[in-house]
Amino acid sequence: MKFSINRNLFLENLNNVMRAISSRATIPILSGIKLTLSDEELVLTGSDTDISIEIKIPVSEDLNVESTGSIVLPARFFSEIIKKLPGKDFSFEVRESFQTRIVSENSEFTINGLDANNYPRLPEIADESSFVITGKVLREIINETQFAVATQESRLILSGVHFTFSPDAIKAVATDSHRLSERTIALENGPQTKTDLIIPGKSLQELSRIIGEADPEVKVMPGDNQMLCQIGNISFYSRLLDGNYPDTDRLIPTESTTSVEFDLSELSSALDRASLLTHAGRNNVVDLDLDVDNQKVKLTGTSAEIGNVEEEVSFKNLTGNNLNISFNPDYLRDALRASVTDAVVMNFTQPLRPFTVTPNKDDVEFVQLITPVRTF
Amino acid sequence: MKFSINRNLFLENLNNVMRAISSRATIPILSGIKLTLSDEELVLTGSDTDISIEIKIPVSEDLNVESTGSIVLPARFFSEIIKKLPGKDFSFEVRESFQTRIVSENSEFTINGLDANNYPRLPEIADESSFVITGKVLREIINETQFAVATQESRLILSGVHFTFSPDAIKAVATDSHRLSERTIALENGPQTKTDLIIPGKSLQELSRIIGEADPEVKVMPGDNQMLCQIGNISFYSRLLDGNYPDTDRLIPTESTTSVEFDLSELSSALDRASLLTHAGRNNVVDLDLDVDNQKVKLTGTSAEIGNVEEEVSFKNLTGNNLNISFNPDYLRDALRASVTDAVVMNFTQPLRPFTVTPNKDDVEFVQLITPVRTF
Repeated sequence: MKFSINRNLFLENLNNVMRAISSRATIPILSGIKLTLSDEELVLTGSDTDISIEIKIPVSEDLNVESTGSIVLPARFFSEIIKKLPGKDFSFEVRESFQTRIVSENSEFTINGLDANNYPRLPEIADESSFVITGKVLREIINETQFAVATQESRLILSGVHFTFSPDAIKAVATDSHRLSERTIALENGPQTKTDLIIPGKSLQELSRIIGEADPEVKVMPGDNQMLCQIGNISFYSRLLDGNYPDTDRLIPTESTTSVEFDLSELSSALDRASLLTHAGRNNVVDLDLDVDNQKVKLTGTSAEIGNVEEEVSFKNLTGNNLNISFNPDYLRDALRASVTDAVVMNFTQPLRPFTVTPNKDDVEFVQLITPVRTF
Repeated sequence: MKFSINRNLFLENLNNVMRAISSRATIPILSGIKLTLSDEELVLTGSDTDISIEIKIPVSEDLNVESTGSIVLPARFFSEIIKKLPGKDFSFEVRESFQTRIVSENSEFTINGLDANNYPRLPEIADESSFVITGKVLREIINETQFAVATQESRLILSGVHFTFSPDAIKAVATDSHRLSERTIALENGPQTKTDLIIPGKSLQELSRIIGEADPEVKVMPGDNQMLCQIGNISFYSRLLDGNYPDTDRLIPTESTTSVEFDLSELSSALDRASLLTHAGRNNVVDLDLDVDNQKVKLTGTSAEIGNVEEEVSFKNLTGNNLNISFNPDYLRDALRASVTDAVVMNFTQPLRPFTVTPNKDDVEFVQLITPVRTF
């Protein structure tokens, strides 16, 4: 195996493959990156068993093949080395006993490689039920729901986001049982048949990063317990979660007894200040007082040690019954960060029943649900 | 105690006082910041016993005094609160039982304060042996020596930089007994009598940050076991180290048997690459081969696990005997980072004797000494 390649071209692709490689790999060979060279292309592969990334770099004037083959190299060192090489190009050659020689200008590395035959195979996923969506939509819906997945593994199914792809829409739901985020976005060419996938939150984070700011087409290929997303020359594999996702629709209240609208940045800043003190104490709880009679809204945070803060928050359209409700400010902060409009409507029923945070525009299908905390 | 103040003016000064306040204060009141208000000025004080910082904000249109007094507030929270206040100004009032009320627009904090009478007093330092130097020179000499102090406390005296101020020069020396940095810079108005001070490395780091990019005048006031530096409205106190600093002059070799000159950035990059592998192994040692006969210089780094790297380094004026020498690459990296010229001269005697790194210009008085490592 011997080739020479433009260093920047290689680095850009290497950085994407590195996203799949964990520094705490339990299977030693997975701390490595696999390079496979044919006459047509160089394939880079990384995996942490939950996600796998495979990138194909086609032969071009920037990639010159002398002889084909494959090797696994220690990923972290290999990537540090490539970053620090002095030249515009480097040459790469696998010699006896998997010893790999990397040369760029006056710098010459010899790295101990591993037999690529011992690297696990990626799953094969059939193309039959695939469909294409825009990277922009996929990234948006990930960023609007993924933060709400459970991070503790007590109910594994809740560590994933539940996607339902239909011909004309994607719906995604995530909940850690304290708060929930449900978003629906219209699609033009969704899959013919309704497709349910529960994708681990961590996989989605990496997928969102790989999609990036550009708006590439993403081909989604669901498999049995794996899915594959193809984004340009990148193949992104993720494990799927098995089981029945809870029926979340019935959790979302359809009526309310108190309603109020807040400017997003105004409420966020007040919440930031209030949680300064609640983060210091044992109870991370703020208190929201909606005084409909006097048309006043007050947000309070208290720490027995440090002191307390009272914020008078400006609002619009405060209607219904007076209400005093307590909740974890971090859940509301996350909900506001995910918000797609400049103002949000909050709808409440009783002090101990979940309340909703929704956009102030009816045509945006986005509901966030937060469970309050009992403080008495 | 009651005043109102421009928030940015206050924050700027608060940030500087915060440098003296440790989040791991062993004396509880020192995790606080002291505010003392007179009719003339607001004084902010912070201390971790090693260093103390006192800043005076004079009364002006931006600082309005209603009543004088003093208080100690939890520094970290107080500073977070001030950062996040909504308005351009805030008002500050100490009420019953040291309860302090901070109001800015619709935001109102009440913080539990402490009695300022329990805050330790700062030392009094006489003005008699003071002298003035430019911030630029002081900051430069700190940054060129401080990194070489001992960080392990086995020989406390070596955790400081040894300064000798004379009428026409400052000399500073730091060593951790494996490497040494000695720098001399000419002064125009040094102290009349030679003044020796051993200043803890950590204090110097903070002093250098407070001096900053601007070039303020620094009035240095040496005391018995404390020193005071006045920089504008900032008083910076540091503990001094007591004892005799070792005589380092005799350590610096005056002759050499091999000499070579390197371009700074070229040698730094080669060293970075070589140490990629040595940092991975148990022995963090690179090998420098100076082949005078064949006019070749080679830098090698090896890790039994990962592999090895060979760098052919370009050079100038390689003269004397052939030499092969091994050393910790981090010491040379630090020396190169502190370098003030674009090229350095390295002078060697024997493989196990310290070698020097000096500027390639004779008029710059800067010597760095590195002790090699025995590898055979």
